[in-house]
Amino acid sequence: MRDVAIIGAGLTKFGERWNVGMKELMEEAGLAALEDANISSRDVEMLFGGTMAPGSFIEQEHTAALIADQLGFHNIPAVRVENACASGGSALRLGYITVASGIHDIVVVGGVEKMTDITASAATTALGGAGDQEWELSQGITFPGLYALIAKRHMYEYGTTEEQLASVAVKNHENAGKNEFAQFRNKITIEDVMKSKLIADPLKLLDCSPISDGAAVIVLAPLEKAKKYNDTPIKIVASAQASDTLRLADRDSITELKATKIAAQNAYKQANVSPSDVDVLEVHDCFTIAEVLAMEDLGIYQKGKAAKAIADGETALNGKVSVNTSGGLKGCGHPVGATGVKQAVEITWQLRGDAKGRQVSGAEVGMTHNVGGSGATAVVHIFKRGD
Amino acid sequence: MRDVAIIGAGLTKFGERWNVGMKELMEEAGLAALEDANISSRDVEMLFGGTMAPGSFIEQEHTAALIADQLGFHNIPAVRVENACASGGSALRLGYITVASGIHDIVVVGGVEKMTDITASAATTALGGAGDQEWELSQGITFPGLYALIAKRHMYEYGTTEEQLASVAVKNHENAGKNEFAQFRNKITIEDVMKSKLIADPLKLLDCSPISDGAAVIVLAPLEKAKKYNDTPIKIVASAQASDTLRLADRDSITELKATKIAAQNAYKQANVSPSDVDVLEVHDCFTIAEVLAMEDLGIYQKGKAAKAIADGETALNGKVSVNTSGGLKGCGHPVGATGVKQAVEITWQLRGDAKGRQVSGAEVGMTHNVGGSGATAVVHIFKRGD
Repeated sequence: MRDVAIIGAGLTKFGERWNVGMKELMEEAGLAALEDANISSRDVEMLFGGTMAPGSFIEQEHTAALIADQLGFHNIPAVRVENACASGGSALRLGYITVASGIHDIVVVGGVEKMTDITASAATTALGGAGDQEWELSQGITFPGLYALIAKRHMYEYGTTEEQLASVAVKNHENAGKNEFAQFRNKITIEDVMKSKLIADPLKLLDCSPISDGAAVIVLAPLEKAKKYNDTPIKIVASAQASDTLRLADRDSITELKATKIAAQNAYKQANVSPSDVDVLEVHDCFTIAEVLAMEDLGIYQKGKAAKAIADGETALNGKVSVNTSGGLKGCGHPVGATGVKQAVEITWQLRGDAKGRQVSGAEVGMTHNVGGSGATAVVHIFKRGD
Repeated sequence: MRDVAIIGAGLTKFGERWNVGMKELMEEAGLAALEDANISSRDVEMLFGGTMAPGSFIEQEHTAALIADQLGFHNIPAVRVENACASGGSALRLGYITVASGIHDIVVVGGVEKMTDITASAATTALGGAGDQEWELSQGITFPGLYALIAKRHMYEYGTTEEQLASVAVKNHENAGKNEFAQFRNKITIEDVMKSKLIADPLKLLDCSPISDGAAVIVLAPLEKAKKYNDTPIKIVASAQASDTLRLADRDSITELKATKIAAQNAYKQANVSPSDVDVLEVHDCFTIAEVLAMEDLGIYQKGKAAKAIADGETALNGKVSVNTSGGLKGCGHPVGATGVKQAVEITWQLRGDAKGRQVSGAEVGMTHNVGGSGATAVVHIFKRGD
């Protein structure tokens, strides 16, 4: 298998993008990524497109071929990948496998979701498709409710507090304020989070990532050819994925995501990297509790220790490890299919030294962590500079 | 890249499966395939699951992880693939790439659709997501209407007749009568088709494939290890895919599917096989006109010559080339995500000599052709015995 590198990255502004549709979002991010990679649309050999629920959001399936056409990738193989909120990360791993296999050289991985064309209520129903419809959602629980159960149990077992959870959102808004692509640029306080509307006890509105429109695109090439296109290729040193039961009730523990632990262990082994080597990390904070779980399940902190460390500022920009410098799902926004790809865009910029006002000093090892549903899919990638 | 073989195949009965859900359908086909491959669920290293629109049909996304759990594939990477009605074929190609790359050995490729839980009208709307929502469906055309436009133009340019189109359905019901897994076992006549209800002129009810429940599963392994599991591995000698505009109006011609032509050319080249070498062929007859296009675009007949040849019986069982021995989408049924995988199951059985009353004598080269939407995706595979 060949080594694989990122040679281009592009992103749209995330947020309520009323004036454009899914195709235009992908075009905006895609053309930026092609320009960044110094290639034309004719050079692209295959497209993977991560999208979660375009059938529900915009009554459109078959989105990969549509996007390939919109971007001028004439007649190439194009495949839509769907793994709920881990659709983007799953697409990235398939792009990695495809380039590594030798079957194609230049592969584009896009992620997109156009979520604001339907009501928030209908969007919440669509997102519920990430859980088990027959055994969870149909029984009355909402998708935020699943993470609320996880949060309650984590608080019970480890003494995690609502204020500590709130500190995740405060940090991520702080970082988003430094990111021109982020949905929310405003700073918030612990008090703001605590006083925001209750969604599913103990999670409040500002513990939850928003409904967003947006797209992200990565261009992959074999590392041996990457320098032809880009002076600072970013090498994918590990690509790992695992699954778990959709149903929370079927798991041994709901205070950890087993899929994250397995994917992380495989990724560290593949990259020959340990958790303490990671300088900059984008994790899946769909709810504040999810960032706490991620920091523990990725082995950055021991189980039960992450919430206090986050509240103490250890994971702030240029802290012990810089986490969600993009603003994360909470601050940057969460167009679900785009998120896993956006994480890789942010790490690419960080490892190139291009992250402007939110640059992590001396960042050499980056990691992304993308979760589907309440943890039935987890995808972990590790990155280094390719030179 | 490694050679890849099919070591197991399994199928459910296709039809109106009121008493089971998507999970049970996948379990039925999956356990049959595992048994056929002489492996246990613990041996499986990755799952690709093709499904078109479970969000619309059963309010469930994230289906691959759900299926992996149902089949006892503990914690493996699982990815849903969606390319409209070519979801199954696209999933098969990704399974092929993954095994060829060396990253995983035993990979399961499943396809499933549970379509009968909603009204036929709602199902037709969901299937419309295969076309361009903004520029086709929202303007008032139905999905059958797109193929009706193609049929009208083909009749105008080549003198193709409604009776010739009807002969496709008659042949495919004849074959389906010999297939215990088929939705329709009854024989029909040209007159039956001509007298059936008009759906979209010139297509009548019996020109259209039905709404179906069903699942199909293939188990892949590196050819070099295949004999450990199965005495008659089937080698995938070509795997090719292409895309085209979703919008019919953007194409140079609507009497051919360019994606099929490109995928077929690439497949013949990879396999070093010519169209006349193909003994048994499963093509995408979502509507009768689609089988005519397929026979021409795959290079089996010259443009404009296929309809008469089909009507003359050249593609009947043990004719010049045996086409849709399973009964095709029209006779066997069309659970959309399952179809591309079912085609490979049928070819596996044919090349093994296990196709019972519909066995093609001396079948050595098999081919599958799976189309998404009105031709924006086409996937072509060629198969031979692996020994």
